Amino acid sequence: MEKFSYIGKDMKRIDATCKATGEALFTADLALPRMLVGKALRSPHAHARILAIDTTQAEKLPGVKAIVTAKDTDGDKWGVFKYTQDQQFLPTEKVRYVGEEVAGVAAVDEDTALEALSLIAVTYEVLPAVYTIEDALAPGAPQLHDVYPNNINVHVVIDVGDVKKGFTESFLVREDTFTAPEDAYFQGEPYAVAAQFDHSGNLEIWMPNAGPHLKAKPLSNVLKIPLNKVRVRKITIGGAFGGRSEISPADVICALLAKKAQRPVKIVYTREENTVCTRQAHAMITQIKTGVDKEGRVVARDITCHMDGGAYSSTGPIATSVPFLCMEQAYRMENVRYNGYRILTNKPIRGMFRTHGRGFACGVDIQLDMLGEALGINPLTMRLRNARQTGDLTPTKSYVASCGLTETIEKTGKMSRWAEKFGKLPPYHGIGIGCNSVQTGFPMGIRGGSQAFIKLNEDGGVTVITGIVDNGQGNDHMIVQIAAEELGLTPDDVQLISADTEVTPSDPGSYSMCETFIGGNAVRLAALDVKKKLFRIVAEEFGVGEGELSAKNRKIFITKDPQQSMSIAKAVRMALTRNESISGEGSYWPKVDWKREWVKNPYGQLSETFSFGTVICEVKVDPETGQVEVLEVTASQDVGHALNPKVVEGQFEGGVAMGGQGGMLTEYLQWHEGRVLTPTQLGYLVPLAIDMPKINDIIVETNDPKGPYGAKEAGMSVAMSAAQAYCGAISNAVGVYFHEYPITPDKILKAIEEKKRETEKSNP
Amino acid sequence: MEKFSYIGKDMKRIDATCKATGEALFTADLALPRMLVGKALRSPHAHARILAIDTTQAEKLPGVKAIVTAKDTDGDKWGVFKYTQDQQFLPTEKVRYVGEEVAGVAAVDEDTALEALSLIAVTYEVLPAVYTIEDALAPGAPQLHDVYPNNINVHVVIDVGDVKKGFTESFLVREDTFTAPEDAYFQGEPYAVAAQFDHSGNLEIWMPNAGPHLKAKPLSNVLKIPLNKVRVRKITIGGAFGGRSEISPADVICALLAKKAQRPVKIVYTREENTVCTRQAHAMITQIKTGVDKEGRVVARDITCHMDGGAYSSTGPIATSVPFLCMEQAYRMENVRYNGYRILTNKPIRGMFRTHGRGFACGVDIQLDMLGEALGINPLTMRLRNARQTGDLTPTKSYVASCGLTETIEKTGKMSRWAEKFGKLPPYHGIGIGCNSVQTGFPMGIRGGSQAFIKLNEDGGVTVITGIVDNGQGNDHMIVQIAAEELGLTPDDVQLISADTEVTPSDPGSYSMCETFIGGNAVRLAALDVKKKLFRIVAEEFGVGEGELSAKNRKIFITKDPQQSMSIAKAVRMALTRNESISGEGSYWPKVDWKREWVKNPYGQLSETFSFGTVICEVKVDPETGQVEVLEVTASQDVGHALNPKVVEGQFEGGVAMGGQGGMLTEYLQWHEGRVLTPTQLGYLVPLAIDMPKINDIIVETNDPKGPYGAKEAGMSVAMSAAQAYCGAISNAVGVYFHEYPITPDKILKAIEEKKRETEKSNP
Repeated sequence: MEKFSYIGKDMKRIDATCKATGEALFTADLALPRMLVGKALRSPHAHARILAIDTTQAEKLPGVKAIVTAKDTDGDKWGVFKYTQDQQFLPTEKVRYVGEEVAGVAAVDEDTALEALSLIAVTYEVLPAVYTIEDALAPGAPQLHDVYPNNINVHVVIDVGDVKKGFTESFLVREDTFTAPEDAYFQGEPYAVAAQFDHSGNLEIWMPNAGPHLKAKPLSNVLKIPLNKVRVRKITIGGAFGGRSEISPADVICALLAKKAQRPVKIVYTREENTVCTRQAHAMITQIKTGVDKEGRVVARDITCHMDGGAYSSTGPIATSVPFLCMEQAYRMENVRYNGYRILTNKPIRGMFRTHGRGFACGVDIQLDMLGEALGINPLTMRLRNARQTGDLTPTKSYVASCGLTETIEKTGKMSRWAEKFGKLPPYHGIGIGCNSVQTGFPMGIRGGSQAFIKLNEDGGVTVITGIVDNGQGNDHMIVQIAAEELGLTPDDVQLISADTEVTPSDPGSYSMCETFIGGNAVRLAALDVKKKLFRIVAEEFGVGEGELSAKNRKIFITKDPQQSMSIAKAVRMALTRNESISGEGSYWPKVDWKREWVKNPYGQLSETFSFGTVICEVKVDPETGQVEVLEVTASQDVGHALNPKVVEGQFEGGVAMGGQGGMLTEYLQWHEGRVLTPTQLGYLVPLAIDMPKINDIIVETNDPKGPYGAKEAGMSVAMSAAQAYCGAISNAVGVYFHEYPITPDKILKAIEEKKRETEKSNP
Repeated sequence: MEKFSYIGKDMKRIDATCKATGEALFTADLALPRMLVGKALRSPHAHARILAIDTTQAEKLPGVKAIVTAKDTDGDKWGVFKYTQDQQFLPTEKVRYVGEEVAGVAAVDEDTALEALSLIAVTYEVLPAVYTIEDALAPGAPQLHDVYPNNINVHVVIDVGDVKKGFTESFLVREDTFTAPEDAYFQGEPYAVAAQFDHSGNLEIWMPNAGPHLKAKPLSNVLKIPLNKVRVRKITIGGAFGGRSEISPADVICALLAKKAQRPVKIVYTREENTVCTRQAHAMITQIKTGVDKEGRVVARDITCHMDGGAYSSTGPIATSVPFLCMEQAYRMENVRYNGYRILTNKPIRGMFRTHGRGFACGVDIQLDMLGEALGINPLTMRLRNARQTGDLTPTKSYVASCGLTETIEKTGKMSRWAEKFGKLPPYHGIGIGCNSVQTGFPMGIRGGSQAFIKLNEDGGVTVITGIVDNGQGNDHMIVQIAAEELGLTPDDVQLISADTEVTPSDPGSYSMCETFIGGNAVRLAALDVKKKLFRIVAEEFGVGEGELSAKNRKIFITKDPQQSMSIAKAVRMALTRNESISGEGSYWPKVDWKREWVKNPYGQLSETFSFGTVICEVKVDPETGQVEVLEVTASQDVGHALNPKVVEGQFEGGVAMGGQGGMLTEYLQWHEGRVLTPTQLGYLVPLAIDMPKINDIIVETNDPKGPYGAKEAGMSVAMSAAQAYCGAISNAVGVYFHEYPITPDKILKAIEEKKRETEKSNP
């Protein structure tokens, strides 16, 4: 008999059909009786003092049911940490970016709501603003918040080993600066929120979110409603990518409007609002100094990174250390220093992002290529020599329990025929490699881990009750698959109640692809708890030990004599007639050293597990147009154990699209004085399926000792590695190492031009 | 410090405000996007063969989205027990009562749905029908079902002691026949059901129900959908009274329509449909023979009862023994025989009813009065001499763990000044007494007892997750009150998720007022489980034993040194950081001997607890009009422990309204050939608040050893006792013992007339 019925098998996701047919409903589709349309009035200024808000005319407009301004709040400031409490969801004194919420309106229809917005008169005193890291740091620059002198929101310091000595002992040292502008999350589903209050003052609120419990606590705090009266829910979610974790001003405005109007209210963002007013990724300027020995092994590294945080803290303080941590997980080094600065500017708020820090990660990797070239070592070998290994401690002292990075490098190298290609390709053809790692087993945002309930129905079917959110990555299927596997049921026997703070127990949220490791473990433990109870009954009935039993095909049977079996339905009925519990519980909390001080100075076990990825990319560059044609991508990741290989491959391919095809070729925001010029797909170019190259997927399995069935996460390490590989490949094709990302045709043409001039200079 | 913070205190029910203001929403208020209006086509014949159903014309009507007939079913028959499976929800061969469902239509609006109904052509062959018990039993009578020869649906036999010998040894024996026609449940909320299917074939269905799990299992069976894909829910419920327990044809039709139309469908019954096509109470003919000794103690009793069951089994087979069981619980006797017959007629279906068996119970009581009169013993003394006592075994061998019947008799007697009034009132004034008992702690319909989950929120608030339904009697408040009391929280800290088969664990349902005893115990045990976990943490922190702690006012403290305390919120946060479980579970299943064979021959422990009630009623009869003016009612019941005395009193008063004021004065259905002539309030007179007399409530507490805080149920024993007391009082006023109920003015005038004639005859 096979070990697993479902784990490790290609399965159609339980949500596949409804998404393919369009039957899946999203928050914007939600219709509640007597529901009003909500809209937010937004600041047209990047920095201005609010002198007055006059809503008199708007209130008189027929069909307007409620208007809220800062007057309807008590002016509290919100932040993820105590020392980052700097954001009012309806500001009382100042607006700090173009698009910041100033007022909210609920009306009987959209036209009326929009007309009401135009009737609200806000008197501003426009203030000088800063739009770049450099300007924000300049002496005498306008200050965004009193509590952050020089506009420095947070300064992360890491200093391990002896960096100075390391450089002294290095055979070769290089120092480069890399830059990348902001990119957008561009979720398929624009942000939407619907809220209603019942007659007992209970708030029920729906929105796409990465974790309802992550939303509930701050909503409870800000709205001053006890946590048990805040019910955060979700419908189908069309992508998060790190941008759906926190409370949003729209959540608060929608709830305030619903309360004031005493009717349900729904706010649906336009595409422009979703780009500008949810979250954006940080622009970064990264100085990297790396010293290597003769074999290309990194001896010392010193990185200073400045991130443009926009106007408020958001999750930015946590994000300030993440690019460094990903890097130190992927590559060995003993002496390393990091200074990470998050700088505030009068631009929209920046948060955690699935491929957070292209400028940083591509810099690290492309510099390895430069050093390798100087030493005569090819990029793939440079990665192999520096690759993290199982059993290592990272510089900040995380123990790495499983690491398949070397295997991913070797396998992608082999499949992409690296050895036959690198340095041997025709002109303007290039091949590049990138490696990265993601921490994917740590608790965030909420105390406690993930907990799951499983209740058994009379006919042997079960209901799994869990806080886990599916943002599109397949978590719903993962939960059902694990429960079915462990209980010997079919996925059809498993009903799922997920991500509803009133019903489902606490869960830290679906960020950093942690749900497989954390939530998956909780669900598995709950299933084991149920199974134990059922086995006890069957064991007694058959007169055997509980350890002699197995569950499969809706039956519990004696492992050595499968004919001796009892249907699970019968075992449930026996439990019922004996008045025994027919429910189970499981909870999982990764053991880490995470503390709040960590934000500024991370040290100790960061995560219980890490994923590792390698991508190799082959491109052809058109020297006339600067266009890049991606010929082939090979993506590999150590996923621990691929629970559903088809889903894992889908995540790899989505990662290549996001990190490489979009992130390194076309995606970036264009600005004019703090105003986004490219908020829609007309200007912000997200790759479509038709734009994608051929992708080879290689799944590497290391069976993490603590992962559920050995699993970690799928696709996140590939996403960033793809950016690095694309960068390497284009640099290799053009023969110039790019320092500014993404690598758009104009930069390529300019590089080709400069290279020609230099070649002409040296060969006049 | 007081023992309890909330238990035993008068509290405003958590649902009071929303019901008083009209904010509470019922199933009929439910609006789902794209929802269709559903309607049922009903038989105009009491008995007919269906030859053909032609839906062609109806299908062509624009706006009609789905039509279902028996063709859309597989013709399965449903019943509570295997041997009572006799009802098709859309019959394939015959209709058996006027109003039976024949087809269903879903259309865009009500007008279109009604027009579509008129376009469905059903060809019937009308069959001879039977409308009374006598006709149904007559030789050669038309037969309703092949499986029930002579139209006898069920025959219950009980024979305890030696009845023949008992009569021989009796000092006085009487035999009488008592009759009562059908009454209607007349819930404030007409029946309504809304159903929708999601893209995975999951059915979500809302309706007023007495237990969602009671509905889910038969819906799963009939619709052939696994139990985990049937989600039964409820909104606010406007009364059940025993009539919302079972699956209804409307549930099945609505689900079939929703499936066929692929859109949500809602069916809302008219008042006429609610009266005719949900459930009605059984008409009964009861022959009672009672022998007593010189002191009025019952020595032997022999009862034969024929109940008119209407066209199908429904819960009728269970209901056939209930009037007897209530009686044997209330009154002691050693030799007793019972033959209960449920007879099928071509009339609507009869089910369990809150005051099931007026004809039976009033007969028993009024015969006691007659026997007492003959012996010179007043009615109150007759009851005291026969009253059930704590520690007794009933004739069918139920152990009675707590019984305050004697106390209720004594206290009502005292407060109503019985001794000063009985036999001493002016002409046409009368006083009467009735006693009854209800089994209120037994599992029904579903295997297993009630189970509850409690989950703790980060701020110390909790969510209680339970299958318990509130039909209007206050169960929601009861749950919240118990959880708050046990956990030392306020009711506001407790959020309630109830009665949703997908989310809430199994529960037997809210019938016979069992939820306080069964569900209340489960919630209390869940709260104790949570408390134990919290106490463990606090005890460790304070270095004391867990037994030294108490919880009150959101704090856990050392009982002997309350200053040493920790907030519950802090204890929760400590649990979270220690990764300890922050949820609890409790389940309760009354230990009884209930088996399926019991339906026909009950024997052994029927229920774990019983309530006992006494009502005394004083009336004035107008000899000119036959109108009864109720001067005062004194109602008392042994409720075990009154958890919320205000609610208990409300239940007493509702019981008097239903059993006495309505049930004995005005409420009965009028018929013409199987057709209800009085389906609305125009003809069926339900007492309004303004019609109610002064009521004195006396709560008697016996602290049941197994009840939660000693509680049993509130009001059900009062409801039937009220009918008996009204009957006794009117009989006492007129000087004639009434044998036919309700006692309407025409019967009173006739009795006065006859009495006059007799008096004239004996004094010519």
